Amino acid sequence: MAKSLRQIAEVVGGRVVGDGATVVARVASVESARVGDLVFVERSGGLERALAGAASAVIAGEFAVGAAGKPLMIVAEPRLAFARVGALLRPRVARMAGIHAAAVVAASARMGEGVCVDAGAVIGEEVVVGAGSWIGAGVVLAPGVVVGGDCDVYPRVVVYSGTSLGDRVTVHAGAVLGSDGFGYVREGKTGRYEKFPQIGTLRIGDDVEIGANATVDRGALDATVIGRGTKIDNLVHVGHNVQIGEDVVIAAQTGISGSSVLETGVVVAGQVGIGDHVRVETGAILGAQCGVPSKKVIRGKGVFWGTPARPLAGYLRELAVVARLGKRRD
Amino acid sequence: MAKSLRQIAEVVGGRVVGDGATVVARVASVESARVGDLVFVERSGGLERALAGAASAVIAGEFAVGAAGKPLMIVAEPRLAFARVGALLRPRVARMAGIHAAAVVAASARMGEGVCVDAGAVIGEEVVVGAGSWIGAGVVLAPGVVVGGDCDVYPRVVVYSGTSLGDRVTVHAGAVLGSDGFGYVREGKTGRYEKFPQIGTLRIGDDVEIGANATVDRGALDATVIGRGTKIDNLVHVGHNVQIGEDVVIAAQTGISGSSVLETGVVVAGQVGIGDHVRVETGAILGAQCGVPSKKVIRGKGVFWGTPARPLAGYLRELAVVARLGKRRD
Amino acid sequence: MAKSLRQIAEVVGGRVVGDGATVVARVASVESARVGDLVFVERSGGLERALAGAASAVIAGEFAVGAAGKPLMIVAEPRLAFARVGALLRPRVARMAGIHAAAVVAASARMGEGVCVDAGAVIGEEVVVGAGSWIGAGVVLAPGVVVGGDCDVYPRVVVYSGTSLGDRVTVHAGAVLGSDGFGYVREGKTGRYEKFPQIGTLRIGDDVEIGANATVDRGALDATVIGRGTKIDNLVHVGHNVQIGEDVVIAAQTGISGSSVLETGVVVAGQVGIGDHVRVETGAILGAQCGVPSKKVIRGKGVFWGTPARPLAGYLRELAVVARLGKRRD
Repeated sequence: MAKSLRQIAEVVGGRVVGDGATVVARVASVESARVGDLVFVERSGGLERALAGAASAVIAGEFAVGAAGKPLMIVAEPRLAFARVGALLRPRVARMAGIHAAAVVAASARMGEGVCVDAGAVIGEEVVVGAGSWIGAGVVLAPGVVVGGDCDVYPRVVVYSGTSLGDRVTVHAGAVLGSDGFGYVREGKTGRYEKFPQIGTLRIGDDVEIGANATVDRGALDATVIGRGTKIDNLVHVGHNVQIGEDVVIAAQTGISGSSVLETGVVVAGQVGIGDHVRVETGAILGAQCGVPSKKVIRGKGVFWGTPARPLAGYLRELAVVARLGKRRD
Repeated sequence: MAKSLRQIAEVVGGRVVGDGATVVARVASVESARVGDLVFVERSGGLERALAGAASAVIAGEFAVGAAGKPLMIVAEPRLAFARVGALLRPRVARMAGIHAAAVVAASARMGEGVCVDAGAVIGEEVVVGAGSWIGAGVVLAPGVVVGGDCDVYPRVVVYSGTSLGDRVTVHAGAVLGSDGFGYVREGKTGRYEKFPQIGTLRIGDDVEIGANATVDRGALDATVIGRGTKIDNLVHVGHNVQIGEDVVIAAQTGISGSSVLETGVVVAGQVGIGDHVRVETGAILGAQCGVPSKKVIRGKGVFWGTPARPLAGYLRELAVVARLGKRRD
Repeated sequence: MAKSLRQIAEVVGGRVVGDGATVVARVASVESARVGDLVFVERSGGLERALAGAASAVIAGEFAVGAAGKPLMIVAEPRLAFARVGALLRPRVARMAGIHAAAVVAASARMGEGVCVDAGAVIGEEVVVGAGSWIGAGVVLAPGVVVGGDCDVYPRVVVYSGTSLGDRVTVHAGAVLGSDGFGYVREGKTGRYEKFPQIGTLRIGDDVEIGANATVDRGALDATVIGRGTKIDNLVHVGHNVQIGEDVVIAAQTGISGSSVLETGVVVAGQVGIGDHVRVETGAILGAQCGVPSKKVIRGKGVFWGTPARPLAGYLRELAVVARLGKRRD
């Protein structure tokens, strides 16, 4: 997939300074780059090291113009351009279309053109898989599941009935989609729990990515929804009836309780706990390990931290006060 | 599975006001109900909306008597009655009895009457599965595992040797039961760790439900025990030798370290951390994200919060004091 | 595998007091020991109960010399000796060598001598598995994965391409190794995320153990590394480019963000959150649920607690001050 800098610049929109015929085949880090690799630098401070390394060319911002030693590709957003070049040089793995002899596909399932189903996958009745999707080894798609086109469903993912995935969705190994929500009713006299109906659905939009061993529950009676472009990291838990907007980012091990809403563009760091019936409005960034109590609304742009989650500035002042008091009592 | 209100009332014990011949086929939320659906209302405030919707009938408390527009089923506990009607109208999925041709079942395994084993399941020597149980696609039951009757073991669950499940146990996809506990001994001179024996067992009682991708370790030398009726949510970790009583509820991503005891009826919210050798006594409710230090005893009815976990009232006072101090130092 | 005390003492280095011909077949806890079992006692306080039980012999320290009633094995470190005797009496399970008829192994995969591949495992092109390793039911080894010798890979583990495991590595059920890191670049105008290349590798050293449903991401451009002898508990998340030294211990549900470094011998308790680009130096012990902010260096021997993580003594003083203030405002 080697390409010249000139070809690359045409696709990702940069300006080549130096020999545009220079050919690169891979993206790499500055530390490990070899001949044929393309690296990127975001700030002038890192430029010298990049130029001293073995890479064949460097993506950088305007600050780099005039630097000698290597061909440069000058762009407004070096990291973004680098990501796009990475995708250009190493596109989605081409899988061999077809159903492996050791996969089990129900007669009524409909597989789109070019679908690849690996060994050990089990695909139930009435399942629909869109063109160009990959169903990895040992994946289980329960009856009626819908998978869009050009999806990557990694090995051992399990999708319960009532779940639909949009196009270009990536689900990493071991994730479980559409499992029952955690809802029970306590019987007053005996103290025993009876299961509240967990018969809703799960709808996942286009271009969503879901991490390894993450779990997303179906709605109790209605739908759990994950919006287009949202990215969910490993071991995240999304409870029943949760509504997640578009382009939301949720880092590893965060948990979102039932019926909460995360609006478009919200950013959630790792190990955050969000109670039930919470609303996190657009513009909010939830810091790592913070906790949002049930029914709370998080409003306003900026970073929230601590449990209960509060604006960062106030939280830091509280930490400072407590630290001071702690020292005073020595 | 459609039933008349009169038939339903006979089973779940309510009193019909209006046309008892009204037939319903599904339970639904007030928001999404259509003709043929049954909804529920817990407080008078929600009644008007329920009556204005498309549902064919409404479960409600005494407060609803006299309301016009739809047949009512009056019960003492509307949510509980709704849950029971849900189970009545949509009982446990009937699976086709038999062992799929693509499952691997050891010759010495004993399968009860009506057991369903899906494709890709692997069942070891001397395994026992009780009548009416479902073993989902790709489940692995290691040699000697015992599964009771009428259990639902969802796809890709792995059960290690030495584990037994009671009757009517539900285990969601990806859960791992009976894995080795996390116990090592540090060799003084080298600083290297050697494995402490993890050769105990895991006993899970009747009517337990375990969430997707949860993990429950076997005992080190003796047993880990989960009592009847206990409900465990997704991604929960239960360490070795833990003793969990009956009717305990544990929300998502909580972790329980080795040898701790949760007595009957304890409620644990999400992302709680419980150290080793802790005892949580009956009546305690552990709030989300709280942390119980090793060897601590949590005693007394009520809610505990924070790390280290303390009674809610005191914790809130502390939060308030700190917030005040933080503001003062602006 | 029964052995006499004398035989055992020769292997693990103890001194027998009493009848060295006494034969034991199992290790057990003092509580559940039966005839033929060997138990251990670390402090004189527990000796009486051990001697009163049914065990055939007791491992203990010098404090026990002179105690009557049972043969003793006197050692410097009773718990360590007990662990070693456990391994001696119940060595690694001997698996039947060979590839199960229901496993799928690519033609170009190379399996070492005595390798056991269970039913439903899927092994890709160019995979290498070292002599004596066990690949459990339903394990997926993607193309090019390297597994060393004498490894135990439990059922349903998924290993992505680009991952290598050393010798004697144990990976518990459901773990995912080498999945894509969580890295995206936000496109300024649209607010949409594009994937940063996640094309690095994952190297796991000898004698590592990884818990059930844990996830370890590959590096973005370079390698994620886990050093020899490190032990990782269930549901732990290790992000891309993380460098973990040798003999590190990480308890359940801890998360380590991208590019962080844990030096040799570090101990991390459960539910700890470590931000990106953190360095935790040798000698540090991170207490349960503590949080280390991005880019922070944790330096010095001792225990760190709280979020942000700070030395235990100061943290406890702060807790005490806050508790006092909370009470005063009643």
